Amino acid sequence: MATPQIESSGQLPPKDASDGEAFSRWYTTAIRRSELADYFEPVGGTMVIRPYGFSLWENMQAGLDKRFKATGHKNAYFPLFVPESFLRREAEHVEGFAPEVAWVTHAGGEELHERLAIRPTSETIFGHFYSKWIQSWRDLPVLINQWANIVRWEKRTSFFLRTTEFLWQEGHTAHRTAAEAQEETMRMLGVYADFAETELALPVVRGQKTAAERFPGAVATYSIEALMPDGKALQSGTSHFLGQNFAKAFDITFLDQDGARDFVWTTSWGMSTRILGGMIMAHGDDSGLVLPPRVAPTQVIVVPIPTRTEAETEQVVDAVNRLLKELDAAGVRAEADWSDKRPGWKFNEWELKGVPVRLEVGPRDLKNDQVTLVRRDTRAKEQVGVAGAAERIQALLGEVQAGLFERARAFRDENTHTAEDYDTFKNIMENQRGFIRAFWCGSSECEARIKDETRATIRVIPEDAEADGSGVCVYCGQPATTSALFAQSY
Amino acid sequence: MATPQIESSGQLPPKDASDGEAFSRWYTTAIRRSELADYFEPVGGTMVIRPYGFSLWENMQAGLDKRFKATGHKNAYFPLFVPESFLRREAEHVEGFAPEVAWVTHAGGEELHERLAIRPTSETIFGHFYSKWIQSWRDLPVLINQWANIVRWEKRTSFFLRTTEFLWQEGHTAHRTAAEAQEETMRMLGVYADFAETELALPVVRGQKTAAERFPGAVATYSIEALMPDGKALQSGTSHFLGQNFAKAFDITFLDQDGARDFVWTTSWGMSTRILGGMIMAHGDDSGLVLPPRVAPTQVIVVPIPTRTEAETEQVVDAVNRLLKELDAAGVRAEADWSDKRPGWKFNEWELKGVPVRLEVGPRDLKNDQVTLVRRDTRAKEQVGVAGAAERIQALLGEVQAGLFERARAFRDENTHTAEDYDTFKNIMENQRGFIRAFWCGSSECEARIKDETRATIRVIPEDAEADGSGVCVYCGQPATTSALFAQSY
Repeated sequence: MATPQIESSGQLPPKDASDGEAFSRWYTTAIRRSELADYFEPVGGTMVIRPYGFSLWENMQAGLDKRFKATGHKNAYFPLFVPESFLRREAEHVEGFAPEVAWVTHAGGEELHERLAIRPTSETIFGHFYSKWIQSWRDLPVLINQWANIVRWEKRTSFFLRTTEFLWQEGHTAHRTAAEAQEETMRMLGVYADFAETELALPVVRGQKTAAERFPGAVATYSIEALMPDGKALQSGTSHFLGQNFAKAFDITFLDQDGARDFVWTTSWGMSTRILGGMIMAHGDDSGLVLPPRVAPTQVIVVPIPTRTEAETEQVVDAVNRLLKELDAAGVRAEADWSDKRPGWKFNEWELKGVPVRLEVGPRDLKNDQVTLVRRDTRAKEQVGVAGAAERIQALLGEVQAGLFERARAFRDENTHTAEDYDTFKNIMENQRGFIRAFWCGSSECEARIKDETRATIRVIPEDAEADGSGVCVYCGQPATTSALFAQSY
Repeated sequence: MATPQIESSGQLPPKDASDGEAFSRWYTTAIRRSELADYFEPVGGTMVIRPYGFSLWENMQAGLDKRFKATGHKNAYFPLFVPESFLRREAEHVEGFAPEVAWVTHAGGEELHERLAIRPTSETIFGHFYSKWIQSWRDLPVLINQWANIVRWEKRTSFFLRTTEFLWQEGHTAHRTAAEAQEETMRMLGVYADFAETELALPVVRGQKTAAERFPGAVATYSIEALMPDGKALQSGTSHFLGQNFAKAFDITFLDQDGARDFVWTTSWGMSTRILGGMIMAHGDDSGLVLPPRVAPTQVIVVPIPTRTEAETEQVVDAVNRLLKELDAAGVRAEADWSDKRPGWKFNEWELKGVPVRLEVGPRDLKNDQVTLVRRDTRAKEQVGVAGAAERIQALLGEVQAGLFERARAFRDENTHTAEDYDTFKNIMENQRGFIRAFWCGSSECEARIKDETRATIRVIPEDAEADGSGVCVYCGQPATTSALFAQSY
């Protein structure tokens, strides 16, 4: 008999975030065994998002899409193929993306005149159309988002975090003034932060990227950064102020109210399936996933407890069905596991899948008109009256959501250090990792050397950098221009 | 000054369905001017779906997705890239699709060992994973759908109807028995028919394809066919019984309850943005689109009528805002056009965009506590009291939806002919077109000759073919095996 693969052997490896390899094994196994996703070995670096994972993504999409529409954006769908000449129109853009591109060279039985890139991002395609659609100041702003698949050929692969094909949304907007475009850039950064914290219980730090980490073609890039249990930072959403760079490359001009013709100011911003990986890493434990209730495909799993008599069975079935109905009416996503497996097996299985609340309905409890609730995050157990169960569950889901966020925030805060000198800095990176707030002189050289020597990069100049006051560069000792947030990145 | 393009010259060409070129000009111009879509000339055959068109597609997606979930299906996302060797595993499949494939040959700066097809359909990819995921009869059925982009390199291009990249959903299911798979195939054909008729007001004929029109690799293909105003048929959704063909090609087996190992039985079914084109052709008129209320992005456009005094303005603004609120509360998608254009300009613009109901709010009407409603389809006008307006609008939207369906059904019925002999058949195809029900001997040769001589193909063997009784083949005069539905196809 063949050796069973780790992921089907029943036991997860422990979530040991202090050991990179062990942590990665936990992550990969938890994702496979909970059936979130699977690798597609025949094409290295690609994956399938299975129904359970996709349902999670659908809930996340709904939460984001609602926010985009509330801020005036509309969805559209732009072409997958980017002619090579389009990429070349913006010098930094092609330099940044060309190495990762997948090229279509033949189609319909013929060799193409010009190679077509599978979109690695769509600034150029949007630019082409905006140049056609925008004529007058009356046409502005243009606020369009698309949900799409993206291809970037990556050497390393990790479920959700880094795959050659991934799903994302990309917003592309055009404005009359620099100020409006800058405001939009910051608005969408705020939308991402609110989404990550409210829906995914993922505390984030907002700020601006340095030149070294800027989006190719952008004037300024902002991101939200989340701290993972292994002390590395995950860039979880980016918002770019593109200035007039793409407007000039694609000749996007408008006639202003005063009759003058000018280039528009554009932005772009994106969040991808990558953040799903961040959410899994942040909240999961030795038993598997722990999903925030707001996005969990199943919020409550109802497990009927075995009975001895037909009368008891009838009682349990009735109670389960009544509770499912009440939960459904209350807008709670609940389902019952009626399979013929033992309760212990079911508990493990649904813990692995990260369902936030388990509802046990058994004959003994029912005798006292009670049922049992178990939280996935803390495993706290409570008995509640059948009549008040649905209401209690709604409250409990809110408590789990808040609890996950608080726990992640406490972890983030405990692992956010300050380093006034380089020895302290190196020491933290060697022994603890996490976020380090330190002063920086603004030179790319110091930034690069710190990276070479410690793996830490500047994740962002945090929004509240000024609160840190002034000091000297942690690397070179020259007067600092700002405080910066360092970490090793994913 | 440059000559304005037709689509921006204010006037649509008339919808003259008797002249193919004129009809196509109407279709293309109506789509461009209403801002549903635009061509992407740099990559022939591709298009962008603009926000107005995409909003329509989102509403259609919601209507379909709801039906898929109600019939037990779950969504997932499978990889875009299909290795060439995958396509080759099913002989008919590769023969059918290879000529239309776009190939990725280089990626990440290197030439690939094996060419990758951009998915022209995903039976092979699903097959690969189903072979991994399905072990036992307990794993069956597997009922998965995905919403995805598809690439088929086409020479001809027409908005929505035929583009190299398009959006669709593809369902792929695996079953324990042939009977269950066959049942699923028919269930989904029924879902498509119900969706087309209920949501899009598009009457369809269901039936089975002949061998010549079968999906490459299927045992049986079923489709729904809609009759367009020019007398041509549009295949609007297909459902395939794949037998064990893909199960054998991808080794998808399961251990049955009795311990025997057997191949699963699979189905696949798809509906694409193409049906959006059918809906536009079926309902539009000389003034532009006419959208069925159930999927229209905006169901009611509120046009404030100019006022002479400030008191009047205040009255109109108040009434419009109150009505918008009431409509929103009633679940009606309404918006007001507050732009500074003349009412006549607005009427034309929103008629072009096909908004089902116009609500005019003016000072004269308001004096009598009234507003004016205008149906887009019949242009019938009515005055209603302000207090009852929201309720009346809800009913009116239902009337428009039913009216569009009835009109399309009457057209379909009037243009469904029977032909007992080939002269009649040819005569109909030359002078009227439409659907022709005629007896057929079952030979592919007769089918091919009829196509060569008249352009008519067998769209389907209709579900109710037996009701036609028996007869002789309309082409060769031999005893017929069935009645068939002929038409020239899109």
